[in-house]
Amino acid sequence: MTALDELVKLLKKLPGMGEKSATRLAYHLIATDKNYNNALGEAISTLQDKIHPCPICGCYSEGDICPYCDDEKRDKTLLCVVEEPQDTLSIAQSGVYNGLFHVLGGAINPINGIGPGSLRIKELKDRIEKGSFKEVIIATNPTEEGDTTALYLRQLLSPFENLTLTRLASGIPIGGDLGYVDKLTLARSMRGRIKL
Amino acid sequence: MTALDELVKLLKKLPGMGEKSATRLAYHLIATDKNYNNALGEAISTLQDKIHPCPICGCYSEGDICPYCDDEKRDKTLLCVVEEPQDTLSIAQSGVYNGLFHVLGGAINPINGIGPGSLRIKELKDRIEKGSFKEVIIATNPTEEGDTTALYLRQLLSPFENLTLTRLASGIPIGGDLGYVDKLTLARSMRGRIKL
Repeated sequence: MTALDELVKLLKKLPGMGEKSATRLAYHLIATDKNYNNALGEAISTLQDKIHPCPICGCYSEGDICPYCDDEKRDKTLLCVVEEPQDTLSIAQSGVYNGLFHVLGGAINPINGIGPGSLRIKELKDRIEKGSFKEVIIATNPTEEGDTTALYLRQLLSPFENLTLTRLASGIPIGGDLGYVDKLTLARSMRGRIKL
Repeated sequence: MTALDELVKLLKKLPGMGEKSATRLAYHLIATDKNYNNALGEAISTLQDKIHPCPICGCYSEGDICPYCDDEKRDKTLLCVVEEPQDTLSIAQSGVYNGLFHVLGGAINPINGIGPGSLRIKELKDRIEKGSFKEVIIATNPTEEGDTTALYLRQLLSPFENLTLTRLASGIPIGGDLGYVDKLTLARSMRGRIKL
């Protein structure tokens, strides 16, 4: 196996990368600047040595704790619960949320053997017990697994009397077209309609 | 800048990779097997140390000469002229061509300052003078630049009286790229190649 075949084989394992795209990318890399390839190769190889989960929220971090947990300006009474570390970035970039995060590391999925014990749910309960949160926003994905997880969390957290539990609204995306929206989304945006 | 930001910045420079795809890919790499990341990083970093252009045909090679030029079973009377090294792969994989290759390293494009002198055209003429080719198949892309290059080569090679010049048949969509054509289309355009 040549160096090129080896690279194509590795690239093909990336998400959304087929044989043709991988081959095309490999040829692109042969013809590109050597310094760039060295930097990219190094960045990929050393990534996991530099980045680890934040012990508090489970988000990716390079320091002892992540930039969100370390940020004194963030609202310590708001907690947003997400499935994956990258979800924190999407929410932070939306610009309307300034609280803390908690990463579950997935969603409840009995078929794949992922129960509440496989997720960072005990850590969530501990944080809420010790913290001063007034609202917990459950921002799991609007999928079967995400909804199941949200329901489970609602049950688990209902004993906290002074805690408001909310869930991200789901509906037609901004700029979307009624004709292209699937029935489930449309049904949910109908049920969750708000007063104008 | 964190290791993650640095990786996203590098990934964004890859063809067809925007901010979102790069971020998604970076997060995928954090969560993936460390051995895989090491192998991929190493493969990218060392790629250009292992691979260099074949001194005969200009195709990428790991040995002194490339597998095509080194293959005794290939028809030494047939020469297929392509723009880029990866085009040789597309044609070899179509399964209907068993001759040699010549990589020009691009196509004539006066607007971008690429004239015949910037391409491996002198090397092509030398090979034809010294070799025993009976047919030269011009397999440049069916674009304006590729067609210009084909016409230029027809003029240049017309003094070789015993040489048949052919061009890949249409069937490849105009404005297309050899790297994206499916094997069947490519095979058909190879079989139906026409005399220039």
